[in-house]
Amino acid sequence: MILEIIAKKRDGGVLTRDEIAQIVLGYVRGEVPDYQVAAWLMACYLRGLNAAETLALTQIMVESGDQLDLSSVPPPTLDKHSTGGVGDKTSLVLVPLLAASGCSIAKMSGRGLGFTGGTIDKLESIPGFRTALDLETMVAQVCRIGCCLAGQTERLVPADKKLYALRDATATVESVPLIASSIMSKKLAGGAHSILLDVKVGAGAFMQTIERARALASTLTAIGRGAGRQTRAVLTDMSQPLGRTVGNALEVREAIETLTPHAPHSPRFRTFCLQLAGEALHLCGVAPTVEAGIEQARQRLDSGEALQKFRQLVEAQGGDPQVVDHPQRLPSAPHIGDVRARESGYLAAVAPRLVAYTALRMGAGRQKKEDTIDPAVGIEVLHSVGEWVEAGEPLFRVHARTVEQLAHAQNELENAYETTPEPVPPVPIILERL
Amino acid sequence: MILEIIAKKRDGGVLTRDEIAQIVLGYVRGEVPDYQVAAWLMACYLRGLNAAETLALTQIMVESGDQLDLSSVPPPTLDKHSTGGVGDKTSLVLVPLLAASGCSIAKMSGRGLGFTGGTIDKLESIPGFRTALDLETMVAQVCRIGCCLAGQTERLVPADKKLYALRDATATVESVPLIASSIMSKKLAGGAHSILLDVKVGAGAFMQTIERARALASTLTAIGRGAGRQTRAVLTDMSQPLGRTVGNALEVREAIETLTPHAPHSPRFRTFCLQLAGEALHLCGVAPTVEAGIEQARQRLDSGEALQKFRQLVEAQGGDPQVVDHPQRLPSAPHIGDVRARESGYLAAVAPRLVAYTALRMGAGRQKKEDTIDPAVGIEVLHSVGEWVEAGEPLFRVHARTVEQLAHAQNELENAYETTPEPVPPVPIILERL
Repeated sequence: MILEIIAKKRDGGVLTRDEIAQIVLGYVRGEVPDYQVAAWLMACYLRGLNAAETLALTQIMVESGDQLDLSSVPPPTLDKHSTGGVGDKTSLVLVPLLAASGCSIAKMSGRGLGFTGGTIDKLESIPGFRTALDLETMVAQVCRIGCCLAGQTERLVPADKKLYALRDATATVESVPLIASSIMSKKLAGGAHSILLDVKVGAGAFMQTIERARALASTLTAIGRGAGRQTRAVLTDMSQPLGRTVGNALEVREAIETLTPHAPHSPRFRTFCLQLAGEALHLCGVAPTVEAGIEQARQRLDSGEALQKFRQLVEAQGGDPQVVDHPQRLPSAPHIGDVRARESGYLAAVAPRLVAYTALRMGAGRQKKEDTIDPAVGIEVLHSVGEWVEAGEPLFRVHARTVEQLAHAQNELENAYETTPEPVPPVPIILERL
Repeated sequence: MILEIIAKKRDGGVLTRDEIAQIVLGYVRGEVPDYQVAAWLMACYLRGLNAAETLALTQIMVESGDQLDLSSVPPPTLDKHSTGGVGDKTSLVLVPLLAASGCSIAKMSGRGLGFTGGTIDKLESIPGFRTALDLETMVAQVCRIGCCLAGQTERLVPADKKLYALRDATATVESVPLIASSIMSKKLAGGAHSILLDVKVGAGAFMQTIERARALASTLTAIGRGAGRQTRAVLTDMSQPLGRTVGNALEVREAIETLTPHAPHSPRFRTFCLQLAGEALHLCGVAPTVEAGIEQARQRLDSGEALQKFRQLVEAQGGDPQVVDHPQRLPSAPHIGDVRARESGYLAAVAPRLVAYTALRMGAGRQKKEDTIDPAVGIEVLHSVGEWVEAGEPLFRVHARTVEQLAHAQNELENAYETTPEPVPPVPIILERL
C-alpha cells in the first residue's frame, strides 16, 4: 500500500527492499502517480535513507532496465565516474590511457546540463563521432580495442531517468542518498567489476565542502561494495577550472595535447590524469601499488600508445581520426580575444563557476535540456592558481561566435580572477582517498 | 519561482504570504502541477508552518473561492465546528437551540468519511430535506428564521478541496497547521463573527491525546483571532460514543428527543449541548457569563422553542416537518437485535471506534467517497461509562438491513465494552477551554 510506505518514511521509518520496489517499479510502470512519488522523495530527502535502503534503491533502479553484460570482455573490467566540474575532460584522457594499460572500459557518459559540461557533448565536437551505440556494439568494440565512450541508452536505468526528472521539478535533487543511488545505478548497470569515483570538491563542483563530498563518496563506495564491486573514491579539487580549457572542441584539443608525447599541456591536469590512472590500475589489480600504476600510465603516455588508443577509439566510433594529429580540424570560433592581468602578482583564485557560466552563455553548455550546444566556443584558462603573472599578460582567451559575445565574456572574466603580491601555494589536486 | 519556494520550506525557512499564494492559487488555477504541490505539502508536514504562515495559508484558501456575506443578517452571527467524533449529532441540537436563543447561524457542514459521520448525511435521512442550498438562499433563510444547515457549496474554498484530496493521497493529512487551515478556511468563508470550536479528544476522535488536541485547538483559535473573529475552542471527551445513537436516522431521532421537553434522552448528551450553547452565547455576547448562557439555553429547550425552531428549519429546507413529532417517519431498519451484558458490573469502557466501524460496515458511513449511505442502520448505545449494568441487560441495540449484518454486528460488539466490579467515575465531557 503506497500511502503506508510514504507515511513510514515520513515518520522516519526504515523501508524494506520490497517497499522501495513497490514505489520505484510502480512509478516506472506508470501505476504509482508522480504526486505520490514526489511526496515520498521529499520524505526521503528530509528523513534520509540508511545504507541498506540506499543500496536497495540503487539495485532496484538497475533492475528497472537493461544492463551491460561484460562477461565476454577480457578482464579486468573498469569504469570511472566524475561527479562533474568545470573543464573536466578527464575521461577523454583516462579511457584511452587505461585501455592502453590493459583494462577493458565500456564507459557510458552523460550530457552536460547547467554549469558542468558532458563528455558526450565534448566528443560530438569531433566530426562524425557517434555516441549513440547500442549495448552489443559497445561490448564488441571493447573486445576489439579495449574501450568505448558512449551515451547512456534509453533502456539503461529508466527508473533513474524518471526519478531524476521528478526530483529536478520538486527540489529533491540535493540529497546524498538520492544522488548516490542515481550515480551508482548507472555504474552498476555498466557491468564493470572495478569502479573508480572522482568526487569533486569546491566552488566549481556540486559538493562545495569537503564534508559534503566525503559524505557522498562514502555513500557511493558503500553502494558499490554492497553490490560486490571493487570501488574506490578520490576527493579531488575543483576550486579552479580543471586544465586550461572550458568548452567542447577546446577541451577535446586539450585532451589530445595531454595524450600527445612532448606536446604543450597543463602540468597540473596531466599529473591529475596520471594519479587517477594509478588509482584505477591499482584498484583493478593491474598494478601492485598506486605509484606503480602511475609509472605504468606515464609510460603509455610517453610512448604514444595512449594517443594511438584514442585514435582507434575515434575511428571505431566513426569520427575523423585526423583530428588527433591535426586538432585544427575541430570546430573553431571566429572571434578570439584575451583578458589580461590588470597588475602583476601571484594568481590567487580563478572562479570556476563564473568561467563556466560565461562559457555556458556563449553556447558551450545548456541552461535547459532543449538548448543546443555550440562546440567551437569556450574559454582558455591560461594560468593556474599559484602562478606568477605579469601585468598585461593574457589570463583568459575567449573563443566566441559573435563580437558581442566576445565583449560580454571579456567583461565578465574581468571579475573571474584575483592576484596578490604574496606567494600563493599551489592547490593539491587529490585531497583524500576512500 | 515554485522550485525555490519548495526548497525554502524543505530547508526549514519561513514562507511569505506571497510565496504561499503562488503555490496554492497556482495549484487551483492548474498552473502548478500536483507533484510540486505534493513535495511542498510533505515539506510543510515535516518542517511545520508557523502561526503567520498558517494564517496566511488559511486566508489565501478562503480567497480562492466564494464567501458567505452575512452583512444583511441580524447580529450576532455565530458558527460552530466539531472536529468529529462517534455519534456526534451536536449540530442538530445546537443550531436550532442557538437560533432560538437569538443568534444567526448559517452553518455549513460536511459529509462523513471514515469512522465519523457527517451532519449533512444525517439530515438527509429526513424525507425531502435539501442540504444543497446556494449562498443567497442560505442568507435569506437565516434572515427569516435565524438558521440554516447546508452542505458546503462547490465554490466555497476550492483550494481546500484540491489540497485535501492531494493530502489524502500523499500521507500529508495529519499535520496540525494543515488540518487547522483546512478547518478554519471554511469557517472564515462562512462569514460569522463568532466561532465556537469543539475539539474532540480520545479514542473516537482524530486527536487521541490531550496534547495533540490542545495543539490543534490553539492553532485553530490563533487563526480565527488572527483573522479578526471572536474564537473559542473547547476540548471535549470522545473516549466513548457521544449520546445514545450511532447511525444517521437514529441520530436525528436522538437529536429530536433531546430537543423535545420531557422526552427520554441521554443526560450526558443534553448536558453537553447546554454547556456548548452556554459557551457560544457567552462568546457572541448574548449572555454575560457561560453559566447565564447555559441557563438561557435550558429555558429555550424546556419551553419547546428550540424544538419549534428545528421544525421551522426542517420545513424551510423542504423536509417533512412531521418527523419532529413522529420520529417513526424516519427510515427504519428491518432487523433489530440486542447485545446483552455478560455479567453485572460498572460499565468501564465503550470502544468508540469499534462501534463506529461496526456501524460503518452496515452502511451507516463511507469507507470510500463513492459509497452510498443506508440512513436506517446503526447502533443504539444504551449506557454510558460509569453506569451500573445487570447481567443480561441490553447494552447495544443493532439496527441492521439484513440478518447477516445483524449477526456480524452483534458479534463485533461483544468486544466493544468492558465492565468491572469497582465503581467507575463518570468521564467529564468538557475537558478544557482555550
